[in-house]
Amino acid sequence: MAINNNSADSSEKAAHAQLHFADSSDPDMRYLSGVYVPDPFLLFTCQGQRIGVAPAGEYNRITQESSLDEVLLLPEVEEQAAQRFKLPKGKKVGTVEVVSHLAEFYGIEKFKVGPAFSAGLFTKLQRAGLQVEVEPDEEFLPQRQIKTAQEVTLLRKANRASSAGFRVVSKALADSKIGRGGVLKLDGQLLTSERLRKMINHACLEQEAMAMNPIVACGDQACDNHCTGYGPIRAGELIVVDIYPQRLADGYWGDMTRTFLKGKASDAQRRLVRTVKKAHQMALEMIKPGVSGGRVHETVQDFFVKQGYETIKSSMPEGFFHALGHAVGLEIHEEPVMRAGAKFRLRKGMVMAVEPGLYYPGLGGCRIEDVVHVIPGGCEKLSSAPYKWEIA
Amino acid sequence: MAINNNSADSSEKAAHAQLHFADSSDPDMRYLSGVYVPDPFLLFTCQGQRIGVAPAGEYNRITQESSLDEVLLLPEVEEQAAQRFKLPKGKKVGTVEVVSHLAEFYGIEKFKVGPAFSAGLFTKLQRAGLQVEVEPDEEFLPQRQIKTAQEVTLLRKANRASSAGFRVVSKALADSKIGRGGVLKLDGQLLTSERLRKMINHACLEQEAMAMNPIVACGDQACDNHCTGYGPIRAGELIVVDIYPQRLADGYWGDMTRTFLKGKASDAQRRLVRTVKKAHQMALEMIKPGVSGGRVHETVQDFFVKQGYETIKSSMPEGFFHALGHAVGLEIHEEPVMRAGAKFRLRKGMVMAVEPGLYYPGLGGCRIEDVVHVIPGGCEKLSSAPYKWEIA
Repeated sequence: MAINNNSADSSEKAAHAQLHFADSSDPDMRYLSGVYVPDPFLLFTCQGQRIGVAPAGEYNRITQESSLDEVLLLPEVEEQAAQRFKLPKGKKVGTVEVVSHLAEFYGIEKFKVGPAFSAGLFTKLQRAGLQVEVEPDEEFLPQRQIKTAQEVTLLRKANRASSAGFRVVSKALADSKIGRGGVLKLDGQLLTSERLRKMINHACLEQEAMAMNPIVACGDQACDNHCTGYGPIRAGELIVVDIYPQRLADGYWGDMTRTFLKGKASDAQRRLVRTVKKAHQMALEMIKPGVSGGRVHETVQDFFVKQGYETIKSSMPEGFFHALGHAVGLEIHEEPVMRAGAKFRLRKGMVMAVEPGLYYPGLGGCRIEDVVHVIPGGCEKLSSAPYKWEIA
Repeated sequence: MAINNNSADSSEKAAHAQLHFADSSDPDMRYLSGVYVPDPFLLFTCQGQRIGVAPAGEYNRITQESSLDEVLLLPEVEEQAAQRFKLPKGKKVGTVEVVSHLAEFYGIEKFKVGPAFSAGLFTKLQRAGLQVEVEPDEEFLPQRQIKTAQEVTLLRKANRASSAGFRVVSKALADSKIGRGGVLKLDGQLLTSERLRKMINHACLEQEAMAMNPIVACGDQACDNHCTGYGPIRAGELIVVDIYPQRLADGYWGDMTRTFLKGKASDAQRRLVRTVKKAHQMALEMIKPGVSGGRVHETVQDFFVKQGYETIKSSMPEGFFHALGHAVGLEIHEEPVMRAGAKFRLRKGMVMAVEPGLYYPGLGGCRIEDVVHVIPGGCEKLSSAPYKWEIA
């Protein structure tokens, strides 16, 4: 509906408002609007209300599907802005004029934007004389860190898509035969990272989620962070499989990792996997409201060192070279992150991926990852898949 | 490799450099680096060289897989920055210090950033005394508008994924029976937008591409821009199917639309489809180097009006209410856009989606979209799928 029907007027001063301008790939936009919009649009807060400014073609759908408190129609707002600023007829009304008009109409003295806000629009708004300030990420939308019951349900569903991926991987490994040179064959054809990745993609899709780049990294490939893996899968090598699908309907992410091996593992491989599994269990037992996120990471790190697994920092790092975990939601990697020195404390309602891992070229890598929901006194897993890893 | 081995020194002044800080979902980053990196990293240009600053865990992979001229190792650069600025030992070196160090080391006097650059980092760099300036989009990386031969090949492949989607849709419509109330049934079950969307998703995956939200909009749903469609498909209604998949390996997009109808169309539906098809042909015939993009849109618009198809602007617009087309590449909607009043001229090497459409609630919508490559004297299609739309 139109601005004119709005109850706000310039006598009630809304000193500060948050301003957003992005499409739904921006997690703040998705969070605040609850609707998928493929092109950038304006969203701002005013006296606790979330107000969107919808382009004509999207207005009907945004009005029906979004969780916004109010939806303004962009061409109407543009017309009002043109009148207010006495723009020549036919001149294109820009986003800056629209925001200036909204500021005056709603009595907004200062806009706060997040760090990811467009530097281009930021400088244009400043040049137009508007007060705009960048707020640090942790202060901008801190409520995103504490998941609602509905968000927890969606995150559980997203992890079900990951689980579906692990089922097809386990089955493919179990059904495959070991060919010449130790390469695996399934239905007579080479079993490759690429082939498993495609099987995972299809399995996740059946669960209404897209796994863009699942990692299927065999042997030393797993020691290269974010290498998605390529080529034949070999018996006797550790295979790190990290499946992080995003739900199509609402944008929430799953994030799970399991490590597999076809055939018989060596003692060194068994000890590596056992150690990571223990670290994983240790972390899950520590996670509860009030505990320092940095402390959980450091406890795992110390445990690894005590077990003889050192971390070596270099251009090709070894050992436990990544963060223990991170929040998950509308982004795959959200704040806060459990890493060495992290100051934050875990809070009820946070949803964290917990992923200890060890990587040594020559031996290979192992990572085990689940997603947990922090609840009073502990945490509950939102992800579920067997930990069986040696597949005959 | 490490900064110390670099030939540049501060005596050779590189007055201006472009600065980027984003992950690979940023199309500029993907374009300049040629590698998929899921977390943000620094990339800058210096004397025509593209230089990336890779986190330790990514260094090896970025060095091997990217098209960067030089890859620096972030922990080394951080150490050098700490020394230069005499930071206390153990203090975390931030991105601002890293950029400041690089500016001094490479003799960069001013950084230019694109409009999408983070406003947070932009203001921090300014506060640190660095000269940073936002360049308008069209001046920042204009070379992205002119596709290389390799890009054209990848865009053709991306559209092949769309074509695979249309094949399964045609087949499903042909194989389906018309049930009570005109709803379609396939293998005894309702044929819905959701079901067709999933079939399209799987078909695109087989072609190594992800179609996140293909549109399958039946009847009046198609008149609602970007409504992805829901519920049963009905005989006798126009079905707009817009398939825009992104290639997994390299990030290039396909973008094609076909309109279908199961059963027998009415005269009004036939005339609508015929008119859109004529407009599509007319646009393809106009597209060649030197022609104004705005002019092509306006010609189609005038043609529609002459045929009696008016455009009505409102909160629920009717007629031809969107742009005729847009460039496609590492973004699904790239500049330039062929819309009314657009000033740009088409140039050799541009790749444009051309998508005339008409939408009237009650009658339904029709859109036909192909992707073309502008070549001397005309254009060549990079997309291919039959235009047969009435399916018995």
